[in-house]
Amino acid sequence: MTQAPPSTVLVVGAGAIGSFYGSALHRAGARVSVVARSDAGVIREHGIRISSPLGDLSFKPERVYASVEEVTEPPDYLLLTTKVLDGVNRAALIKPAVGKHTRIVLIQNGIGIEDEIAQAYGNQRVISALAFIGVSRSAPGQVTHHAYGLITLGNYPQGVDESTRALAGLFTAGSVPASLSEEIVGERWRKTVWNAAFNPLSVLAGGADTAVLLGTEAGEALVRALMDEVCQVAAAEGHALPSDQIAQYIASTKQMPPYRNSMALDLKAGRPVELDAILGNVLEAATRHGVPVPRLRTVHTAVELLIANLRGEHKPAG
Amino acid sequence: MTQAPPSTVLVVGAGAIGSFYGSALHRAGARVSVVARSDAGVIREHGIRISSPLGDLSFKPERVYASVEEVTEPPDYLLLTTKVLDGVNRAALIKPAVGKHTRIVLIQNGIGIEDEIAQAYGNQRVISALAFIGVSRSAPGQVTHHAYGLITLGNYPQGVDESTRALAGLFTAGSVPASLSEEIVGERWRKTVWNAAFNPLSVLAGGADTAVLLGTEAGEALVRALMDEVCQVAAAEGHALPSDQIAQYIASTKQMPPYRNSMALDLKAGRPVELDAILGNVLEAATRHGVPVPRLRTVHTAVELLIANLRGEHKPAG
Repeated sequence: MTQAPPSTVLVVGAGAIGSFYGSALHRAGARVSVVARSDAGVIREHGIRISSPLGDLSFKPERVYASVEEVTEPPDYLLLTTKVLDGVNRAALIKPAVGKHTRIVLIQNGIGIEDEIAQAYGNQRVISALAFIGVSRSAPGQVTHHAYGLITLGNYPQGVDESTRALAGLFTAGSVPASLSEEIVGERWRKTVWNAAFNPLSVLAGGADTAVLLGTEAGEALVRALMDEVCQVAAAEGHALPSDQIAQYIASTKQMPPYRNSMALDLKAGRPVELDAILGNVLEAATRHGVPVPRLRTVHTAVELLIANLRGEHKPAG
Repeated sequence: MTQAPPSTVLVVGAGAIGSFYGSALHRAGARVSVVARSDAGVIREHGIRISSPLGDLSFKPERVYASVEEVTEPPDYLLLTTKVLDGVNRAALIKPAVGKHTRIVLIQNGIGIEDEIAQAYGNQRVISALAFIGVSRSAPGQVTHHAYGLITLGNYPQGVDESTRALAGLFTAGSVPASLSEEIVGERWRKTVWNAAFNPLSVLAGGADTAVLLGTEAGEALVRALMDEVCQVAAAEGHALPSDQIAQYIASTKQMPPYRNSMALDLKAGRPVELDAILGNVLEAATRHGVPVPRLRTVHTAVELLIANLRGEHKPAG
């Protein structure tokens, strides 16, 4: 028996998420290259450095590109780990690196984010993935892994094929727990129930952590009401969630250490945020199905106004 | 004919509002004294200095007290111009200065703010007043009047008697336009439609002014929806507002120069804000009448969480 050659992997967007999951695949024996834009020089010299409660997860990528245009060899798996932002055409961004057999693995937040990629390359090319992890970029080429790491994978829009199963096997071999889902879009809605409630509300509350947001009766009631509105939209989209989903989320969030999501930090630093992927697309689905979501719309508009106001303050006077 | 002696006036809370309206009554010939707490020393020495587009409105109060306890002569009119804050017993605060014939004039924002005073001293002692003015305290004993100044007065809970009419006459004689309302509580609801929509939303949007809040379609839609919820509560309370009230407010606000309310500034500076007088009491009325107000509740809770988060940040670690 001859051994199969190692899988090739290209991480597009070697920030915190991309670095962490690229590192896992590297440990599993895959040949991992990265597109790192402004950090490319530092990473070529020092590799990607990752400190983690699991130990030192640093690794040296096979190749380090400053842009996707430089990629000559299409990978088996292209991990897309950029933020999902309005006005960024992700399908065009990855085009130079997508070969005939490349599977595109979306490790990104939000609802409806597969459509653009699936329309350009076909459903069968898309693996949709959800990362449950606390990880942040601490300096160019340097990442701090705080906690968790589970990745859930599935074919888009449903099912699990051999290639997806093989990728999950690689993550597991690299010491990162991976689970497979036959209904990844439903899983995406489940995760969005949490994110769409907590992330924008944290932004409005000045970057409050989960302990503050659940710290009063009215706060918990609002979080539950926001989650309930997302659940109603999910059900209308054909992804009904278990009746105790909200209770489960509230209970498990109270047990976690207080968690501060990155949306508020990004916004304060003038970085773009994934408001539409996480919340705007939920509102679009609500409109399509005629589901009233007054609280989600209020929160969404308030965050948009906050962003507009910050932009105005950052603008030079004149 | 003998001339009536000049009216005596005591301003409790000589901040921006109290100073401005006290100055008008002084110009009209009333004997105006003030309770100024921390600014008492400065005001004793220099008087109250008010710069205004109308000219220099500075005046020297007859007496300057550092606390209500020092007051020996109960005034004809006691102008209460403090903020309306949770945990402050306003009826007890003014007690030492309320004589048998003193009329208590509430120049304060919010809904339901007369009850506490009326219960302590009787309805017939209360004059309820609404100030439409842009004015701010620039330094101890110094006030800047930016624009407007109209004051609307009425007996509580309704009607207009001679004493209220006489006070309106004094304001007019002091060059401040005053109007009388037979239904001052309805007027209070009308003003709250504007304040309850704009003030807390501005806070959430980082201190955005009216131009930013009305600067997008979604922003204007949210402001209108918040106003509509307040109108529904007002109607349930027996104070139905004209059907074009919201359209009027949107149109007139767009014509004003961009206006930034003080709630956001106060909050950033760690000063208490009148959230309950302006919004919390509307929510209580909504609960009493079973009127659903999901957007107002969302905004209210989000501001409460922001305040809780700021308190946590200001708290020393440990």
